[in-house]
Amino acid sequence: MEAVTVHLGDFSSHMRELGKGFLFTLVIGTTDTSLVPGITIAGAKPELTHYTPAADAEYLVLGRCRVIPTVPMTPDGKPTPALITRSAIKLTGSGVLVVNAGTRVRPNIPIIDLQGEPGRDIKTGLAINRNVVNRAFDNGVILGENLARVSGAIVIGESIPAGTTTAMAFLVAMGYDAWNKMSSASPVNPRDLKITVAREALKNAGIDKPLEDPLEAVSRVGDPVILAIGAIAIGAARQGAKVLLAGGTQMAAVLAFIKHLDKGTLSNVAIGTTEWLIGDRTADLVGLIREIAEVPLASVNLSFSDMPHEGLRAYEEGFVKEGVGAGGVSIAAIARGFTIKRLKEVILGDYRVLLRGVGGIDH
Amino acid sequence: MEAVTVHLGDFSSHMRELGKGFLFTLVIGTTDTSLVPGITIAGAKPELTHYTPAADAEYLVLGRCRVIPTVPMTPDGKPTPALITRSAIKLTGSGVLVVNAGTRVRPNIPIIDLQGEPGRDIKTGLAINRNVVNRAFDNGVILGENLARVSGAIVIGESIPAGTTTAMAFLVAMGYDAWNKMSSASPVNPRDLKITVAREALKNAGIDKPLEDPLEAVSRVGDPVILAIGAIAIGAARQGAKVLLAGGTQMAAVLAFIKHLDKGTLSNVAIGTTEWLIGDRTADLVGLIREIAEVPLASVNLSFSDMPHEGLRAYEEGFVKEGVGAGGVSIAAIARGFTIKRLKEVILGDYRVLLRGVGGIDH
Repeated sequence: MEAVTVHLGDFSSHMRELGKGFLFTLVIGTTDTSLVPGITIAGAKPELTHYTPAADAEYLVLGRCRVIPTVPMTPDGKPTPALITRSAIKLTGSGVLVVNAGTRVRPNIPIIDLQGEPGRDIKTGLAINRNVVNRAFDNGVILGENLARVSGAIVIGESIPAGTTTAMAFLVAMGYDAWNKMSSASPVNPRDLKITVAREALKNAGIDKPLEDPLEAVSRVGDPVILAIGAIAIGAARQGAKVLLAGGTQMAAVLAFIKHLDKGTLSNVAIGTTEWLIGDRTADLVGLIREIAEVPLASVNLSFSDMPHEGLRAYEEGFVKEGVGAGGVSIAAIARGFTIKRLKEVILGDYRVLLRGVGGIDH
Repeated sequence: MEAVTVHLGDFSSHMRELGKGFLFTLVIGTTDTSLVPGITIAGAKPELTHYTPAADAEYLVLGRCRVIPTVPMTPDGKPTPALITRSAIKLTGSGVLVVNAGTRVRPNIPIIDLQGEPGRDIKTGLAINRNVVNRAFDNGVILGENLARVSGAIVIGESIPAGTTTAMAFLVAMGYDAWNKMSSASPVNPRDLKITVAREALKNAGIDKPLEDPLEAVSRVGDPVILAIGAIAIGAARQGAKVLLAGGTQMAAVLAFIKHLDKGTLSNVAIGTTEWLIGDRTADLVGLIREIAEVPLASVNLSFSDMPHEGLRAYEEGFVKEGVGAGGVSIAAIARGFTIKRLKEVILGDYRVLLRGVGGIDH
């Protein structure tokens, strides 16, 4: 099987530009929607989901976490997808910048602030104040323009618990049929719960027909990460950089955001994800992208079934699937000339470091 | 006269790397030392000096200021040196990232936060708490490493009112004879006042013999900008990037900071400034660099004497001289193949926009 499978469009110009080198930008944020019990597994308890983006960012940049006193994996050894991202970044020697789109817990690393705010529970129908949305959007575009002046390929990943639920509500608000197409970090997708939450959000936001303005849709039922990634992508793509949205069905929301604000930039935009995400039968990323704008879509086949640890093999059973840009950065590593075999060796080595508990807090 | 004059060392490898493209990083910060009446002209009144770094950063990135309701120049038309920096950045199409090292007023643009803090008046003998110094240093090194993975040439500039006074105190604390060598943004260098402030700082900090640890010296009598630029430079130079410290005598303090923490990185470090700074007879940058570590030192001869506006010609009379990386970024523009003539045309055009008041606040 090929390491990279192209599902839609022509991915060759992205591969070529990524092959020259890339900058990885991780956009983190929180939405209080993650406090709804059962909506996400990205955190042992609902209130701990607010720590996950900061912990992911710290692990990615430092190789250890500061905001949590433990390693970023479940007690039974299932690691954060940031493990994959970090291994691919190390292998390629690429630069990483972390962007705070709006978080309740800030990581203790250098971080680019867009002066956004954490998202409220979308069930309120007012996720982020409109003036904050406008400010963070302006700042995101400026950042994207400046990043594109430094690197011809920008890979953008996300970490936001409950992000597929907010992405569902956002997509429906913009007129897309996303009800049965969103993926989940859990092997058992809590789809009915997501739909209930999204419906209540749309009702309380008074959205009964499609909106035209994605900034308005973010403000009512979206989250800070859709906003920030969309803004950075628009700024970077306008400057001519190739932008790879590194993520799963949440990136469909980003794609819609971009399309409705600056359609012309889509020629520089593609989506990169994992085979695990594409294989999720409870979701339909390909269908979503087709419905929104048929940009190139590629996935990487990491295939952990031969990994000698159960925590890693769990990815083959639908655990996590994608996140922190794992799929897109792996694709970028392949574009840089590394093999899947080599990447998996590094992942395995880094995972064993986590198992020894070295990933814990340092003070 | 040559556009770029090399005063010390071999500047050719820096010119070569800058010629391939560069990233400009502006590090902003404040020290309450700027509230000492008469110590700086970077602000109409002492308390307004806290707005200057934020206004410089906003003007550089946006072409207008948000934290102040006016254009960034004196009432009689003398502009911020950020004018020169912005013109050179526009001309070269380079990327800009702004780093907050510790400021009392934050700019309303995307900004990288190192979790530093504004500096206290150094007369207290405790400029920045030591744990904050350590944290900002760690974050600065991480940032520098990541920037170097994206660009082979990093130009770093500063904006911090009263920065030459804190740099003087820092250099003396580290054992260098800086008493009569520091420049000033004013045509009339308030040297005696600076010396009085630095002496009181050293006395209250209990420093009667040279310190060996630059982090300790920053904590007692330094400022957040020396710390952050030093940290970023160390991180970037360790990764093999060519680092150009873009500034005047404050960069001598940064050089000492680097030398005492990671001397091996100095082979990748050079200083770039303006001819106005080199020509300051109340200062001695060349002598300072010789005393600390003889890295390459180059200056650009912008020569504003033929400019058709008094506010610009004031630079020839010793007003401002340097700041916001103006000299170093101009040198980088020349390395990129642009002529002084072309750069000055852009500066003149941008200055006329300022005169029309377009640089004012926008909401």
